[in-house]
Amino acid sequence: MKKNLESMKFPEDIKHLNNEELEILGKEIREFLIDKVSKTGGHLASNLGAVDLTLSLFKSFDIEKDKFIWDVGHQSYVHKILTGRKDSFDNLRKKDGISGFPKRKESKYDCFDTGHSSTSISAALGMARARDLKGEDHEVVAIIGDGALTGGMAIEALNDVGFNKTDMIIVLNDNQMSISKNVGGVSKYLGNLRMKPQYNKLKADITSKLSSLRFGKPVVNSLSKIKDSIKQLVVPSMLFEDMGIKYLGPIDGHDIRSMSEVFKNAKQIKGPVLIHTITKKGKGYEKAEKSPEKYHGVSPFDLESGEPYSSPKNSYSKAFGIAIINIAREDESVVAITAAMPDGTGLRGFANEFPKRFFDVGIAEQHAVTLAAGMACSGLKPIFAVYSTFLQRAYDQVLHDVCIQNLPVIFCIDRAGIVGEDGETHQGIMDISYLSMIPNMTIVAPKCVEEVEPLVRWAMKKSTPVAIRYPRGGDEIEGLEPIKEIIEGKWEVVKDGEKLAIIATGKMLQHAIKANEILREKGLNPTIINATFIKPMDEDLISKLVKENYNIISIEDNMAKGGFGSSILEYLNKYDYKGKFKVLAYDDKFIEQGNVDVLYIENGLDAEGIARAALNLI
Amino acid sequence: MKKNLESMKFPEDIKHLNNEELEILGKEIREFLIDKVSKTGGHLASNLGAVDLTLSLFKSFDIEKDKFIWDVGHQSYVHKILTGRKDSFDNLRKKDGISGFPKRKESKYDCFDTGHSSTSISAALGMARARDLKGEDHEVVAIIGDGALTGGMAIEALNDVGFNKTDMIIVLNDNQMSISKNVGGVSKYLGNLRMKPQYNKLKADITSKLSSLRFGKPVVNSLSKIKDSIKQLVVPSMLFEDMGIKYLGPIDGHDIRSMSEVFKNAKQIKGPVLIHTITKKGKGYEKAEKSPEKYHGVSPFDLESGEPYSSPKNSYSKAFGIAIINIAREDESVVAITAAMPDGTGLRGFANEFPKRFFDVGIAEQHAVTLAAGMACSGLKPIFAVYSTFLQRAYDQVLHDVCIQNLPVIFCIDRAGIVGEDGETHQGIMDISYLSMIPNMTIVAPKCVEEVEPLVRWAMKKSTPVAIRYPRGGDEIEGLEPIKEIIEGKWEVVKDGEKLAIIATGKMLQHAIKANEILREKGLNPTIINATFIKPMDEDLISKLVKENYNIISIEDNMAKGGFGSSILEYLNKYDYKGKFKVLAYDDKFIEQGNVDVLYIENGLDAEGIARAALNLI
Repeated sequence: MKKNLESMKFPEDIKHLNNEELEILGKEIREFLIDKVSKTGGHLASNLGAVDLTLSLFKSFDIEKDKFIWDVGHQSYVHKILTGRKDSFDNLRKKDGISGFPKRKESKYDCFDTGHSSTSISAALGMARARDLKGEDHEVVAIIGDGALTGGMAIEALNDVGFNKTDMIIVLNDNQMSISKNVGGVSKYLGNLRMKPQYNKLKADITSKLSSLRFGKPVVNSLSKIKDSIKQLVVPSMLFEDMGIKYLGPIDGHDIRSMSEVFKNAKQIKGPVLIHTITKKGKGYEKAEKSPEKYHGVSPFDLESGEPYSSPKNSYSKAFGIAIINIAREDESVVAITAAMPDGTGLRGFANEFPKRFFDVGIAEQHAVTLAAGMACSGLKPIFAVYSTFLQRAYDQVLHDVCIQNLPVIFCIDRAGIVGEDGETHQGIMDISYLSMIPNMTIVAPKCVEEVEPLVRWAMKKSTPVAIRYPRGGDEIEGLEPIKEIIEGKWEVVKDGEKLAIIATGKMLQHAIKANEILREKGLNPTIINATFIKPMDEDLISKLVKENYNIISIEDNMAKGGFGSSILEYLNKYDYKGKFKVLAYDDKFIEQGNVDVLYIENGLDAEGIARAALNLI
Repeated sequence: MKKNLESMKFPEDIKHLNNEELEILGKEIREFLIDKVSKTGGHLASNLGAVDLTLSLFKSFDIEKDKFIWDVGHQSYVHKILTGRKDSFDNLRKKDGISGFPKRKESKYDCFDTGHSSTSISAALGMARARDLKGEDHEVVAIIGDGALTGGMAIEALNDVGFNKTDMIIVLNDNQMSISKNVGGVSKYLGNLRMKPQYNKLKADITSKLSSLRFGKPVVNSLSKIKDSIKQLVVPSMLFEDMGIKYLGPIDGHDIRSMSEVFKNAKQIKGPVLIHTITKKGKGYEKAEKSPEKYHGVSPFDLESGEPYSSPKNSYSKAFGIAIINIAREDESVVAITAAMPDGTGLRGFANEFPKRFFDVGIAEQHAVTLAAGMACSGLKPIFAVYSTFLQRAYDQVLHDVCIQNLPVIFCIDRAGIVGEDGETHQGIMDISYLSMIPNMTIVAPKCVEEVEPLVRWAMKKSTPVAIRYPRGGDEIEGLEPIKEIIEGKWEVVKDGEKLAIIATGKMLQHAIKANEILREKGLNPTIINATFIKPMDEDLISKLVKENYNIISIEDNMAKGGFGSSILEYLNKYDYKGKFKVLAYDDKFIEQGNVDVLYIENGLDAEGIARAALNLI
């Protein structure tokens, strides 16, 4: 078992394998992935689906000089195995372990860091143009999923590629879904392409001729022309060719032999080529094939049952999912929008109960926000449920389309704060900063799961934009009493104490409560304040703290720069504060992957860290 | 002359005009526009091109209930005239006058505020879905240019429209260019469509039949099907139909009769329809027809000569344009990218001299940034020249694709600070805030035009991201001595004084110098500091000011929230500063249109305002 995988030296040995041996290696890699990811957690279904495709790429291209750019990057595990990182998979996504995404710092074979969707064609095009300007000779290959094609910047890039005829290869890894079922006109179009059996037959014949003849470029080109004219008869609609990009496919993304031939031919074609491969997400693990969404990103799970070891406790996402259903039952004008994340954001239940009021727009955060703005103009109450890190994509739309017009769009921002194992590209620690600077925006955070629904209900009554931010997972302290009355810009004094105030926002309040236990043992009795409102701030309370000579600590799960503490500081300066103020937040650097609790400790946002800061301050 | 325009009551009277009368009115409107805009300045060519299209829309739709969404909005002058705002054109784009863009605050006929490109389809779709959910009955029409279609979010929206078959109308106003010549695969594709004379002939025949017969919906639909099958023979490639959107066109966008018929028919078709109209930018003013780029956005100009009254003095854009040519002559690896702004950004000269190293990607800031990241990975030195307000579109790409990987991409950010007449949507007053919060980013600003080139040269030597921000226009004080030596994170003490420090960044230093004149008369002698570096800050100098008990004023042409002063405040807090500190910047609200100097005064950023703040502080 796994004799190839154990004994081979990667990437050198790949080149010497024939197609049959590659297929055997593929099986071994699948077993390896299922085994490892069931223990560490990570992206499973996308990687299982990309095994054969990756093997074919390594066979057909020269990894020592050619460049692969993996869109999103959650399908790059096989690439990592084949570039000498197999033995690091026990530490996948752990602190100081290997990343779940391509990382240039990690390997010279990782050409571009990815994480967010739809960037690969732009990056690959940049590399291809650099190659041409510098007179170098190598291939550049972007590997992009059908889901990522719904992201506007991928089409912006295609538009540029096709117009300028830059020599590069785009492999479309079409598994007919992104994280959830794919949507949109492009998806429908790809579906039509898949359904052209006559064309497929013709194409296969020609492709095999192309490869068996092994003629030089002119012959390939003239055969290509013949194929084109056939294609025009059989497949009248060619979106990619319309844009100036040669289209080859569709081909079976698990047929290593066919793919290797097509890749070889594609290298001979001058100008941009798109190769359409059809793959099956979860391929080789039956449970994942059946429920690819469930096995997209997984926690450690039992191989037999397929169920995670620790069943998720109550979470903010779940609480939001329940809240929006309750609210929507009472108010017809409530609609919900997601950018390809109906499950992650907790919207699945809403989608099932209110299909006509639910809009999955694909991986298209920009469109999602402006769509919501349009709906708000016409009297609906749109909620856009989105991860903090992905809302970055729509910064301008939040500012330009929602906030300038001061429209009542509600942003339910999940995964706000550190998310852990996904690392730098996914930490949700920018949103307080990038939203606070936008006029007309109100920002709130629940201190516990039970506050999610009251805050969404409160936001519904406003006629201006509101962002509600909450973290991944659930509470650390159960049974906290939810805030009694939500009043705009008012904070909640959770515990009255002496002349040290700890002001925390969101779940960080729970850390403050824990810190209070530690401080009590040291004889300190701080005042603890829950800053339900990040913007506007409780100016009255701040000015009271100033007048009464409090020392103050602020805590937020966000960057210090332009964040919550930074806003408090502006008020303190205004009131000519002479006490001591300490901001607990993330320093001006990206936060790498690791367990959330470990990262809190490392950044001084855990109870101990807060207590330490309090003792230092006084 | 202009008897219709003078005597008619808008919008009521439009409906009663026949096509011939509309044509006459169109001529009058053109004369009116040329006359007014030559005096006030504004967008000329785009509005002249849209006269007939707008008249047809008003004739065919019911402005009292139907909704028009004007993409970008710089072609909405005719819409404004036809909705009762003709008499306000003397105050076009002036403080408290009418805006150059649609504004919901200004008129109930303006359905959605625009300014940035490519938002109209998303917003219109939101309104159409709201209409359907609420059981209302009206049309929603997005009017979008071919340039705006290069923006990814427009395609994200098309993807959603076509898939869900929402009933709405998209009018493609194709003038074969955006602000400059249009680029990209989509543009090429549109070009192909325009070249199908047989199809046009067939289409015209069928369209006239459709309209002359005046049959009900079923007949129209079945005729539509016949047309479809003909179309498939003649025009095999239909990008829009591939996405599920019915395509009608192309039609002459100056032929009011044809357009009115097509619009009438489009209303009867269920589901999304795209109507492709071909227009001529600048139509009716010969000089603008010949040089539509020159007359895109104009300052007041002489009608006879077509030349602006005040010839532009030296500007930061020009200085940048010269700098990059000088640098590129010495270094082959320098490349420049623009998002459809080769003229506005000053890159035209570079494009002419180094066509192979110049990349105009269309209105696609997201792609532009990640393209630059790819180029930087492969050893080029990419410069992305962009307006501050438009870089907002690529916030995530700056963060995720450039800064996480810490890549040497240079952002030359023009129109940073107040831009004036274009108003809220175009003010460049966010960039210090949204860039400062991003780790690994260095931000600098020249205090005068002569510092542009040295700063670009300095940035070239860095191996990490650098943003250089500079304002619209040129200097207020000429002959300032450029900084002698640029050292990372070091500020320049322009003038030593007593215990009041005025720290200014960029051109605000010139206001500080003027303020110094005023203060001298009052017997004050402040220290004046040029903060060349916005990030990192000159921590040594700040700590010296703290130690020596200076009072401090900071000045920036940016929002106070998360801005330059806010960063200084973080240091002051760290060093336990007990003096007085005042941030001069924009308050937490959007800044409306108006003359730049007037806006400075209103926001206390002029010399008087600074002097006043200084006197108040001490």
